[in-house]
Amino acid sequence: MRTVAVVGTGLIGGSLALALRRGGLRVQGYDADAGRLARAVERGAIDEAAPSLADVYAGADVAFVAVTVSGVAEAVAAALDAGLGAVSDVGSVKAPVVRAVEARAGAAASRFVGGHPMAGSAGEEGIEGADADLFLGAAWVLTPTADTDPAAFTAVHDLVALTGAKIMAVEPELHDELVAIVSHLPHLAASAVMHLAADDDANHDTLLRLAAGSFRALTRVSGRSAGIWPDICVENQAAILHILDRYMKELERVRELVVAAERAPLLDFFEIARAEVSNLPERSAGAGPLVELSMPVPDRPGVLAEVTTLAGRRGVNIVDLDISHGPTGGVLLMVVPAAGADAIVAGLDALGYHTARRELP
Amino acid sequence: MRTVAVVGTGLIGGSLALALRRGGLRVQGYDADAGRLARAVERGAIDEAAPSLADVYAGADVAFVAVTVSGVAEAVAAALDAGLGAVSDVGSVKAPVVRAVEARAGAAASRFVGGHPMAGSAGEEGIEGADADLFLGAAWVLTPTADTDPAAFTAVHDLVALTGAKIMAVEPELHDELVAIVSHLPHLAASAVMHLAADDDANHDTLLRLAAGSFRALTRVSGRSAGIWPDICVENQAAILHILDRYMKELERVRELVVAAERAPLLDFFEIARAEVSNLPERSAGAGPLVELSMPVPDRPGVLAEVTTLAGRRGVNIVDLDISHGPTGGVLLMVVPAAGADAIVAGLDALGYHTARRELP
Repeated sequence: MRTVAVVGTGLIGGSLALALRRGGLRVQGYDADAGRLARAVERGAIDEAAPSLADVYAGADVAFVAVTVSGVAEAVAAALDAGLGAVSDVGSVKAPVVRAVEARAGAAASRFVGGHPMAGSAGEEGIEGADADLFLGAAWVLTPTADTDPAAFTAVHDLVALTGAKIMAVEPELHDELVAIVSHLPHLAASAVMHLAADDDANHDTLLRLAAGSFRALTRVSGRSAGIWPDICVENQAAILHILDRYMKELERVRELVVAAERAPLLDFFEIARAEVSNLPERSAGAGPLVELSMPVPDRPGVLAEVTTLAGRRGVNIVDLDISHGPTGGVLLMVVPAAGADAIVAGLDALGYHTARRELP
Repeated sequence: MRTVAVVGTGLIGGSLALALRRGGLRVQGYDADAGRLARAVERGAIDEAAPSLADVYAGADVAFVAVTVSGVAEAVAAALDAGLGAVSDVGSVKAPVVRAVEARAGAAASRFVGGHPMAGSAGEEGIEGADADLFLGAAWVLTPTADTDPAAFTAVHDLVALTGAKIMAVEPELHDELVAIVSHLPHLAASAVMHLAADDDANHDTLLRLAAGSFRALTRVSGRSAGIWPDICVENQAAILHILDRYMKELERVRELVVAAERAPLLDFFEIARAEVSNLPERSAGAGPLVELSMPVPDRPGVLAEVTTLAGRRGVNIVDLDISHGPTGGVLLMVVPAAGADAIVAGLDALGYHTARRELP
């Protein structure tokens, strides 16, 4: 692996490019915004700026497309047409992207692996905020399907691993449902609060002066990257409507608790909400003790997605992954944190896989 | 002014006590939780721990009651009974507290000035998180009424000023409406999101691993001090129900935007929400250039509240305040940031006050 193409050199593309270069790879970059592309060169994020989308893929082994969701399929299809062995993206919505790539690229879509790093800058936006450590310890979702080429998946996995992110394999549809809860709903809920604050003309200055920690925390949610959200709402419409409806029902329930004005059920409500904080995993770079799971796998499509998303569904990230092919089938090696290994082995057993387990030193 | 009584030595009471001691005052403390009271002594927050609520007021000039909202009126009434010249509190809801004090204390309630510092710890809770600089640059609302004794107000103002907070005078009812928007709604909205996340049994671990910045910011809102929220919901019920209803209507509108799936109105929605961030005043300790406004004031009740809350309604904090009484009436001196002076003078003109203005060096 020598050369990676990065299309879109904003915050995410630029940070990925910086991490890849630090990992010893050569990065060719392209951005439709010539100014941003030039700044990516200045920032040292890319080795070479390509003059066009077609040029960026010339001589590259793998491509990452880091443009807004509605533009992903076209840029991915161009990379697949150019013959690259593995192509990924970083879009916030996955099922529509995967389907759009399949519609455009046909069988070549097997070399596409959808991706979504769950990290953003708390500081500057755009290439100015790019940071080789942006993804360190953050989750990076990959969304293999039954058609995904295992070699393409491992190529993408190995590059993403250079960022220090924790790689989770999740089906595209499940990804979209889950980010509707942990990303899209928070943004919509916080933005709607901001609208109520903005509506208060008579007391607007006073209101903002009284804004303490909780309101300021919501502005940090609603205050960034307005431009990517219309695409997200359009592309993940069904999951967003579903969670919005559940949210409004939950607020009706909260309203009834406030109407009833009984302290015990109100305290229950706030305690359950508070407890979610302690359930959040620490964002840490290390994975702790590791276990290597190896299993013979039949040579049929979908095995890779089946095994890797089984780990993802149990909240376990995949530290390393390798697939070797022999005359009597293949062997899949998967390194996972020891804490999650039992759950995966049990799940693999249930699916009929025979798994050998080795603690890594 | 020599001795201040602080009742309730948790995060807020402890931080206030630390700031007052740093300002050269003697602080007597009391807390119904003997362990917390002992830790306040260890932390150096109070000079002396009183063995009972009655004892803490002995020899004190001013008292601050920093207990949960439902306990404020009783402790305040005891301080007024003990003859203190000025008593304040730090409760998150003001109109019900002010009314409860009036109901208990009658005419003596004129020496009570409701208060609410708009700051909390991002770190440890309780006395362990107490910090003399907790309120530096934060808003501290005081809620005078038509009956408030000007001498009590200035005594409380001068002590609060030692914390470095920006003091805003606001009517109790307006305070409760505004904090319903900037504090209570954010907490309820974030807590309801947490409930949806907690409800997802099947994918709970995976969901939390995907939780990036926006979800984590909401957990910072919902994840603290569950115990104070039932009181807040009960005491500020009307304002909270009103803002919850407006919030649900706003979410209905968001839902329609997502259903319509048109990018331009969606972008408008997100841009308006994003703009509120830039409207937020910086939390800074300095006030910039100052102006002293002086005006003859008639000797009738309510003048103090009328003048000071006029500033509060225009988002202007009161840096300093003094009232002198002469044979022909009084003179009110008010120091405010120069940026807000024009708005206040115009408002005072409209109310018939003749205001002299002097830029301070």
